[in-house]
Amino acid sequence: MTDTSAGRRRGRPPRTESAGTRDRILDAAREEFSERGYDKTSVRGIAKSAGVDSALVHHYFGTKEQVFEAAVEVAFAPALKVRDAVLEGPLDNVGERMTRVIFGLWENPVTRKPLLAIVRSAVNNEAAASVFRRLITAQLMRRIAGELDAPDAELRAELAAAQLVGVAMMRYVIKIEPIASADVEQIITRVAPVVQGHLTGR
Amino acid sequence: MTDTSAGRRRGRPPRTESAGTRDRILDAAREEFSERGYDKTSVRGIAKSAGVDSALVHHYFGTKEQVFEAAVEVAFAPALKVRDAVLEGPLDNVGERMTRVIFGLWENPVTRKPLLAIVRSAVNNEAAASVFRRLITAQLMRRIAGELDAPDAELRAELAAAQLVGVAMMRYVIKIEPIASADVEQIITRVAPVVQGHLTGR
Repeated sequence: MTDTSAGRRRGRPPRTESAGTRDRILDAAREEFSERGYDKTSVRGIAKSAGVDSALVHHYFGTKEQVFEAAVEVAFAPALKVRDAVLEGPLDNVGERMTRVIFGLWENPVTRKPLLAIVRSAVNNEAAASVFRRLITAQLMRRIAGELDAPDAELRAELAAAQLVGVAMMRYVIKIEPIASADVEQIITRVAPVVQGHLTGR
Repeated sequence: MTDTSAGRRRGRPPRTESAGTRDRILDAAREEFSERGYDKTSVRGIAKSAGVDSALVHHYFGTKEQVFEAAVEVAFAPALKVRDAVLEGPLDNVGERMTRVIFGLWENPVTRKPLLAIVRSAVNNEAAASVFRRLITAQLMRRIAGELDAPDAELRAELAAAQLVGVAMMRYVIKIEPIASADVEQIITRVAPVVQGHLTGR
């Protein structure tokens, strides 16, 4: 999660052969993990879909867990933006900022894929759940909690996240109507005050 | 989802051999689906764990999807109680009633298992997601929405459910701290007003 890697992703595809191959493997991995979840995805399947040998996947990334972590990392560069957006503005509208950035990630097909991969994988596999806990909790929740002036700050941050996670589950993963097709602005209007309330209420 | 089947589960184990076998298969199915999720569970594995032949599982229940539906049905007899609890009391504390009954189901190991099976399966498998949508949405959400006097009643019911689903995900499925170990009363105190707000606010 360095500035270099974030910059690379935002820019044009790199010119060297190895960087191109690496990105192709990561694209294939995101596709596989988001469609099938962690357990049903294999390094072999990722390699096949990327048109390379399994050994090359291992060479670049190591174990399946490490491929997973690299593949979902693309969701965490924006996630750090969430954190910064939340931390940099005034606390009295932190709920709306947090809600808008999170739904921005889910509504964008590029970042939705790794998010789906994380959710689909974390509910069924302990290795993926551990990545989820480490990245979401350590990188995001604890830093947000650090800005709150409350004894139960971490619990508040997690209850706010839970509202967002729950909506994402029902809208993007299980696709229950009418929440799946509702206008995203309508959802943000209803959810942002709840997130704000959890973080700074009472 | 008949009164008969709910009554049978609440009472003593039935005396006839076939009913005993049927329950043993359902116990095994709940165990397998909740531990492994839908895709990695097989009728063969359920049969093995119940100590019966696969053909008997098919005989009693039919396809794997039908075994799944029967196995998670045990969570829906209480879910209908949720609905009744919600519908029978006054609207101005419906949020607390709904929140308490839902957390009651999750905190009870007997009903937590089928709930875990539903969540773990629905995020990765369309057949299980369809069971989730049919049972949760049709049986629960739409009926609750029917009691609300608001044009966006169904969306309100689902946003309330989303808060509960999100907390359940983080507390019981992915187990993020501190929400996983927090006192359930502390969580109910914070979540109930949010559920109430979604259902009847503004």
